[in-house]
Amino acid sequence: MKTLIIIGHPDKENSHAQQFLIESLQHFENVTTHDIAKDYDVEEDRAKLKEADRIILQFPIYWYSCPSIVKEWIDKVWEMTCQLKGKELGLSITLGVSNRHFQAGGREKYTISEMLRPFEMLANHFEMTYLPPFCMYQFDYAKDEIRKRWLIDYQQYVSAEQPLHFKQKGEWLIEQLEKLNTNGKFTTLMEAIVQQNEQLTDIIEELEMIRNG
Amino acid sequence: MKTLIIIGHPDKENSHAQQFLIESLQHFENVTTHDIAKDYDVEEDRAKLKEADRIILQFPIYWYSCPSIVKEWIDKVWEMTCQLKGKELGLSITLGVSNRHFQAGGREKYTISEMLRPFEMLANHFEMTYLPPFCMYQFDYAKDEIRKRWLIDYQQYVSAEQPLHFKQKGEWLIEQLEKLNTNGKFTTLMEAIVQQNEQLTDIIEELEMIRNG
Repeated sequence: MKTLIIIGHPDKENSHAQQFLIESLQHFENVTTHDIAKDYDVEEDRAKLKEADRIILQFPIYWYSCPSIVKEWIDKVWEMTCQLKGKELGLSITLGVSNRHFQAGGREKYTISEMLRPFEMLANHFEMTYLPPFCMYQFDYAKDEIRKRWLIDYQQYVSAEQPLHFKQKGEWLIEQLEKLNTNGKFTTLMEAIVQQNEQLTDIIEELEMIRNG
Repeated sequence: MKTLIIIGHPDKENSHAQQFLIESLQHFENVTTHDIAKDYDVEEDRAKLKEADRIILQFPIYWYSCPSIVKEWIDKVWEMTCQLKGKELGLSITLGVSNRHFQAGGREKYTISEMLRPFEMLANHFEMTYLPPFCMYQFDYAKDEIRKRWLIDYQQYVSAEQPLHFKQKGEWLIEQLEKLNTNGKFTTLMEAIVQQNEQLTDIIEELEMIRNG
């Protein structure tokens, strides 16, 4: 599976969140990034979209939507005749405010899902599969443990098959550890995960048998 | 009441819909237009916003949102410290597809209200009153009678107090006719509308009496 990440940040170099995300992509061969804030070519980008299986738009939320550079890129590159059917559209977004404001009764009144409806409608138009967005809230204030969680979630978002169930998460983790396990440092950890996953498979099969009587 | 219409069309001169709307504004003294596709000054525009009572963003829908020039203008001009509380935010939009696609079960799946949520959230953020959008669908194919309806609706959208009930619509119409009635041409029509409005007032009062026993 080939993933194309469109990075649309007007000031990427000074964004800790963007640096964090981009650095976490180092070991993923089938993931390419394309920074549209610098420069882009409409025809080349249409070819890039055509080649990708998963297209991820990555940007900070400015006034409840993408920055204008992202919209400009969409308006110029995405045309009616683009063949994107069956591809996945993901959003990797960063927000300056807390998640809790985005709900009925909350300060922003609507959910992130509702706010991002225009992107879902875009995916719908091209018969693409819309992935649940990957969101980081108030990155600069987030604790290390939350950042670690985001790191794994993001790496899975760009590289693992979706939807991602518990068992697939385990398999994905083993795959990543295998890449890093050149000196056998992670062997014990990997064995533990494999064992856990096998137990899970057993439980699932047993449940299936009970269901079928 | 002062209305400011922000026109954000990348090619206004070649848009019949935009020409139609702009021409229909000739007799409205308290309505000013500002074409941001040409050029704008951030500080001047903040002053314009401050002075207006009703701010209307007018643009064609491109991929389920505003064109990038409008988003760029919002991102640059609208800042956290803008004092817009109590003002009205309206949207005057044109769409290339039919209204019927925008509903659950329809091709676009979601309504215009849902699609425009980011603008509603913007109004909400600044404690502005969000007006129901004024929408024209497939202008180039619309019949004359529909265009006439749009003309009146648009003129009311930019100049009449909202929300606009039947009685207010009648009063607004008389006001407009008075401006044009320099040679007495519309006197009979005006008298008919006045009479109709008086009858309506009587019915409303009667209803009120019945309700209160």
